[in-house]
Amino acid sequence: MEFSSKLLERAVNEVSQLPGIGKRTALRLVLHLLKQPKEQTTALAEALQNMRNDVKFCKSCHNISDVDLCEICSNPNRDETLVCVVEDIRDVMAIENTSSFKGLYHVLGGKISPMDGVGPHDLNIISLVNKVKEGRIKELIFALSSTMEGDTTNFYIFKQIQDYKVFTSTIARGISVGDELEYADEITLGRSIVNRVPFESSLKI
Amino acid sequence: MEFSSKLLERAVNEVSQLPGIGKRTALRLVLHLLKQPKEQTTALAEALQNMRNDVKFCKSCHNISDVDLCEICSNPNRDETLVCVVEDIRDVMAIENTSSFKGLYHVLGGKISPMDGVGPHDLNIISLVNKVKEGRIKELIFALSSTMEGDTTNFYIFKQIQDYKVFTSTIARGISVGDELEYADEITLGRSIVNRVPFESSLKI
Ligand SMILES: [Zn+2]
Ligand SMILES: [Zn+2]
Repeated sequence: MEFSSKLLERAVNEVSQLPGIGKRTALRLVLHLLKQPKEQTTALAEALQNMRNDVKFCKSCHNISDVDLCEICSNPNRDETLVCVVEDIRDVMAIENTSSFKGLYHVLGGKISPMDGVGPHDLNIISLVNKVKEGRIKELIFALSSTMEGDTTNFYIFKQIQDYKVFTSTIARGISVGDELEYADEITLGRSIVNRVPFESSLKI
Repeated sequence: MEFSSKLLERAVNEVSQLPGIGKRTALRLVLHLLKQPKEQTTALAEALQNMRNDVKFCKSCHNISDVDLCEICSNPNRDETLVCVVEDIRDVMAIENTSSFKGLYHVLGGKISPMDGVGPHDLNIISLVNKVKEGRIKELIFALSSTMEGDTTNFYIFKQIQDYKVFTSTIARGISVGDELEYADEITLGRSIVNRVPFESSLKI
């Protein structure tokens, strides 16, 4: 792609560093900004810089926060004996959206993935194990994605804490509410049969 | 979407102002930046700001440029009597990519579109008509997209210049090179038959 302006080229190159944004999309986005008032670009640039420079991670659960201890961890109405282990802050947001969980979270920051060069020490695992050792957690819910990396990570953590008194569980896998059985993949359908629940408990949702 | 951080929320909101970027995509992009070195966000923010604040438009063709007269307009090897009228700088880039055109461009900055509130005076039409009046242009090639707005714009410009001595043409529409006829839409296929070219001239491409 040949650019008639170095300023334009640099902007397109930087935008196209973002995942899933190719050069053509980056050009479209940048040309859009050129048609908008300068203030919009300033607001975008400042919001990104401020976020990157000033955002904090909760010292307890590693969720993104503007303060040292996030709103969830500092909420006295949440059950601190119940901790849901997730990969990413997007998972926290997704679960919070359901309003079905009143415990705390622990954000690992990824999954163990030797292929991607991510080992246990790249993740927030030690702080989780320490929380378990301190004895305040009654139940740990693994809510990682159901992939080989997710399973490996679950098992790695499980091995570290199995000698401590904590109940571990994993979120139920099954057919999505509203989905037709015939379109579900075999593994999900199989798990949903093996992990079937008493009919009465299904009525609560 | 509930955010655990105002800084994160503001960044996601600004990114999701971009066309075609929803909140979920914006969140994914912003979280990606958080995992990269701070320098990447700084480079992105600065590239956007510098581009928006300092980019110039060529005083002759309105293409994006870092100088008053763009590289194409100031190139003595280009034929200044041949001017290709396009909507957008992306069209200039696309045509330049083909290396098949040695004239100059005139970038309108859009198409006449009453539905979108774009009238003739929102576009770079007066400067084009003035160039024609000055008598230096021998041929004007309309290369707008083949839509009602594109046709309206072509016709509007044509009416303004029809009393001056200039030849006007429009780019050929037809079946894309390599495309199967059966998958072409009817209008394109129809035009490609009406505008058929002598076989010998097709061998030159
Ligand atoms: Zn927290
Ligand atoms: Zn120019």
